[in-house]
Amino acid sequence: MASRFISERNLKFLLYEVFDVASLTQYDYYKEYDGKMLDMVLKAAMELATGLFWPICQEMDKNPPELVGDQIKVHSSVRKLLEECGTGGWIGDDIPFEWGGQQLPQMITMGSRFIFCAANYSAAAYTGLTTGAARLILNFGKEDLKKTYLPNMLAGKWQGTMALTEPEAGSSLADITTMAEPTDHGYYKIKGQKIFISAGDHDGVENVVHLMLAKIKGAPAGVKGISLFVVPKKRMDEKGRLVFNDVITSGVFHKLGYRGCPIAQLSMGDSDDCRGYLVGEPHQGLLLMFQMMNEARIGVGAGAAAIASAAYYAALEYTKTRLQGRKLSTKDPTLPQIPLIEHPDVKRMLLFQRSVIEGGLSLLMQTAKYADLAIILTGEEKEKNELLLDLLTPVAKSYPSEMGILSISQGVQCLGGSGYCDDYPLEQYYRDARIHPIHEGTTGIQGLDLLGRKVMMKGGKAYKLYLEEVQKTIRETEKFGELQSYPQKLRQSLEMLQQVTAYLMDAQKKNTPEVFLADATLYLEFFGIISVAWQWLLQAMAVEKALRNSPPGAEANFYNGKLFAFRFFFEYELPKTQGLATRLMHNDGLTVEMTPDLFSD
Amino acid sequence: MASRFISERNLKFLLYEVFDVASLTQYDYYKEYDGKMLDMVLKAAMELATGLFWPICQEMDKNPPELVGDQIKVHSSVRKLLEECGTGGWIGDDIPFEWGGQQLPQMITMGSRFIFCAANYSAAAYTGLTTGAARLILNFGKEDLKKTYLPNMLAGKWQGTMALTEPEAGSSLADITTMAEPTDHGYYKIKGQKIFISAGDHDGVENVVHLMLAKIKGAPAGVKGISLFVVPKKRMDEKGRLVFNDVITSGVFHKLGYRGCPIAQLSMGDSDDCRGYLVGEPHQGLLLMFQMMNEARIGVGAGAAAIASAAYYAALEYTKTRLQGRKLSTKDPTLPQIPLIEHPDVKRMLLFQRSVIEGGLSLLMQTAKYADLAIILTGEEKEKNELLLDLLTPVAKSYPSEMGILSISQGVQCLGGSGYCDDYPLEQYYRDARIHPIHEGTTGIQGLDLLGRKVMMKGGKAYKLYLEEVQKTIRETEKFGELQSYPQKLRQSLEMLQQVTAYLMDAQKKNTPEVFLADATLYLEFFGIISVAWQWLLQAMAVEKALRNSPPGAEANFYNGKLFAFRFFFEYELPKTQGLATRLMHNDGLTVEMTPDLFSD
Repeated sequence: MASRFISERNLKFLLYEVFDVASLTQYDYYKEYDGKMLDMVLKAAMELATGLFWPICQEMDKNPPELVGDQIKVHSSVRKLLEECGTGGWIGDDIPFEWGGQQLPQMITMGSRFIFCAANYSAAAYTGLTTGAARLILNFGKEDLKKTYLPNMLAGKWQGTMALTEPEAGSSLADITTMAEPTDHGYYKIKGQKIFISAGDHDGVENVVHLMLAKIKGAPAGVKGISLFVVPKKRMDEKGRLVFNDVITSGVFHKLGYRGCPIAQLSMGDSDDCRGYLVGEPHQGLLLMFQMMNEARIGVGAGAAAIASAAYYAALEYTKTRLQGRKLSTKDPTLPQIPLIEHPDVKRMLLFQRSVIEGGLSLLMQTAKYADLAIILTGEEKEKNELLLDLLTPVAKSYPSEMGILSISQGVQCLGGSGYCDDYPLEQYYRDARIHPIHEGTTGIQGLDLLGRKVMMKGGKAYKLYLEEVQKTIRETEKFGELQSYPQKLRQSLEMLQQVTAYLMDAQKKNTPEVFLADATLYLEFFGIISVAWQWLLQAMAVEKALRNSPPGAEANFYNGKLFAFRFFFEYELPKTQGLATRLMHNDGLTVEMTPDLFSD
Repeated sequence: MASRFISERNLKFLLYEVFDVASLTQYDYYKEYDGKMLDMVLKAAMELATGLFWPICQEMDKNPPELVGDQIKVHSSVRKLLEECGTGGWIGDDIPFEWGGQQLPQMITMGSRFIFCAANYSAAAYTGLTTGAARLILNFGKEDLKKTYLPNMLAGKWQGTMALTEPEAGSSLADITTMAEPTDHGYYKIKGQKIFISAGDHDGVENVVHLMLAKIKGAPAGVKGISLFVVPKKRMDEKGRLVFNDVITSGVFHKLGYRGCPIAQLSMGDSDDCRGYLVGEPHQGLLLMFQMMNEARIGVGAGAAAIASAAYYAALEYTKTRLQGRKLSTKDPTLPQIPLIEHPDVKRMLLFQRSVIEGGLSLLMQTAKYADLAIILTGEEKEKNELLLDLLTPVAKSYPSEMGILSISQGVQCLGGSGYCDDYPLEQYYRDARIHPIHEGTTGIQGLDLLGRKVMMKGGKAYKLYLEEVQKTIRETEKFGELQSYPQKLRQSLEMLQQVTAYLMDAQKKNTPEVFLADATLYLEFFGIISVAWQWLLQAMAVEKALRNSPPGAEANFYNGKLFAFRFFFEYELPKTQGLATRLMHNDGLTVEMTPDLFSD
């Protein structure tokens, strides 16, 4: 077991020095807080993570959920964990005060969730899902739904889920077949199957509340016919008792990782007695669900960066203590061996991890800030922040997810053979993190969302706002001579992004959507690298400000280390945009032209 | 379970159409064979793989080795498998006839091992290790060692191993402490510890024969004091009975994957009664062991490409049958769903897999051809082939190992959530393949070997020969107009390689070895991409020849599919060299300058 999983110092650097979270408390919505109180929230999150989440991370992996009868049994600590998260206010951390929440800034809840996910991703999934489901009920549910479900969910007594995927409808939600038949009693009768439902059933709670997509009988085909329902495992009868609602757990999946959290297969209405309660208007389900899904996507990005952070600190600890080999320039075998971390190639692997994790987390914090500003501000400013959040959501989901895998893989590599064995936590992190490019919309889906929708929406308004944001950072950092040519490097990359985007917009006019979007996943990767370089420039500027304002005392290592990670990103990661641009500017339809029969031999 | 794991057609394409294996049979050493016989060998390998290896691949993963008392118990099929491989001649497949082997060309044994590894990597590791250990005894052992050990090893009754790593000496073999004390009886007394010994003990054989590195008492420090010994688990007493040789199995590691094969911790000489038999001269151990290690490195590359192949065919099968979504240009939800493979992004992921697997396998086959020619030819021609083999060994080990991970990850991605669950074999392949960049010398070690040793050895002779080989291919393929600008693209990349190499050779003179070699791993990656592009050009030329000679009938899909994979590699993979070259031409010592304390915060 490694001894740490995140850098609190880095989290505070982002929150206070880069994104100035305390400035939010000047607005009405967050006026109950001040900087000191926010600090206390993070401190409490660290204590909870260290005391409750972290110690059971490996245990939960080694004892995965089991289906016993029709009940999924999970690790015995899950109940206690949910109760403590409930009573501690963590499940309702960003829910408004009036509904018993803490009404905390998104930047702070991003910080606390990052802490929980790094300590124990599977455990954090239970609470994160409940929070998201609760907010969906809060925002779109009728008053009685709110009263029935919110208190128990926020208390950690009832689990919330997102129930979208079906056996024949994964990425293609248009094809769900779960049906909802209206009745005269205000509820709908639900019938269908759902698969891959995270925390879809378990014995750590009294009840499970599914936010479920289904089609009302006679609804239009495709996504336009999807409605959103609350479908509880147990419903409240007239006397306020919980009775079975005909939601049967028909299976639990055995997974590569993320084993502390069950993924269930559900069957609704086998006895024709499953009641669902409409949320919002009929046929508006997908639109409403997207609120939860977008939050969940950013949550996935945060989870990915968090696991990568835990892997990085485990690798760092190992490379600092494990002696192996000698300096290349002094290979005298009679000298003592040196720690692995003295080898440049090992430092390269560590800097890679640090640069993508801290860069990715910065991007996630940036989206949280846009979310906060969208809550706080009004009119055009509100719209601006909403658009930037929308644009960056697929990037903030995918960059940490894809790079997290590579980052953890380099962590495994730092440990050599020990990284492959379960005496160390790296192999678990490697398994856990592989889920992120898959769940809540695969990387392929995110690429289509970015290039096919977000970049073009409202006449490219969000994209233009994004360019302005990055350009503003470049201009500001150009005033810092210490940052040398790096702002200029990002300027060149941003020009490349504009060229590539203009080329593709032109291709969009000339070609079928298949050809135009064939390399959308690569465009997403390209966009992600540039966005993270932007975040590194923001961080470097904050470092330089700190170094100017106070002579580097005890914090010198932190700030100087940051500058190395910053330089590393620009020197090793940003050049990857060159090859990507070459490919993206050659929209030849190769993968469209290739026909399935040519894969045979 | 998927229904296939390799393409026999592709293997034959490489063997006969690209590398003309039959031409080897004109030489004395291989004169017992003809093309038809070689075909039969491959057919027999496929039968054995399909009948024996493949059916137990998942079972062996689910029932990993256990240490019971001081004996590692493995899957009950291992004994039968080794016996059948022994009686079938597979363990001695490239051992000379006079020692009971099959004396097959390296290209053919590469083919058969690729088949076995794709069917069941863990199972194939047992036999591959025995073959390598046997050849080491054959080439450097005294007559009585050969007589005692070879027959039982080749029969699959005794397991062979490479016993190098120790608790304090992994990548740094200079630091091994296992001691060998001479006696007056012709043997040495061995005392020490070994860890991470693949197939280091198991109950599927009567005996385990370790090819072990140790230091003779009073030997020089470092690698110059290492000697090679045969250290059996059980030795033969005067009456020819097997008696315990004081080699104790003190542990078995629990691993991420590759679970069908045990990795043992061994303790020798606890009762001061462990005998070792010197192989070769004292203090020459590392040099001799490098013969087995180099073979093992190429074997690792083959294993990596093989697992990636199995993952690719599993992904291909899934994407052909699983219906999901519709064409982007006709999103009418009332139309039926289409197979996943109709989506360009899915085809992109499949082509990525195919292009790196078939490109990597071609490179491996190229090294096997060099090995064959080094056996057959004499004088300068022999040396040329040896040098090319030496130069390409780290590349042939690392390219498939590193890209195999990414390839399998894309295979997982093709299956979405199902790729993450153990109902499909992808998650196992993902775990199995992570060992390859680690064992038999990490990727970092391979990078140092390529740039720090191989490129510079003999005044750069191997490197120059390599350039000539690639240039020759470029010139030949330029005659094929059908191949368009692709030869020219490789010419440009090769020029880039020359610029980068010249830049680094200059840096080598000006800087410390730390700075010069800081990005050796990236140089290896860069070199690998160019080498595989070269292999794709060779393959494309073979395709064009085939299409010229015979109209594309039943084989049209194979050849045309090949051309797509070829184009894909040049369009999507080769551009990655651009960013790498940018970084490699900026040898700024960033990772050398970064000090360990700056990683703290």
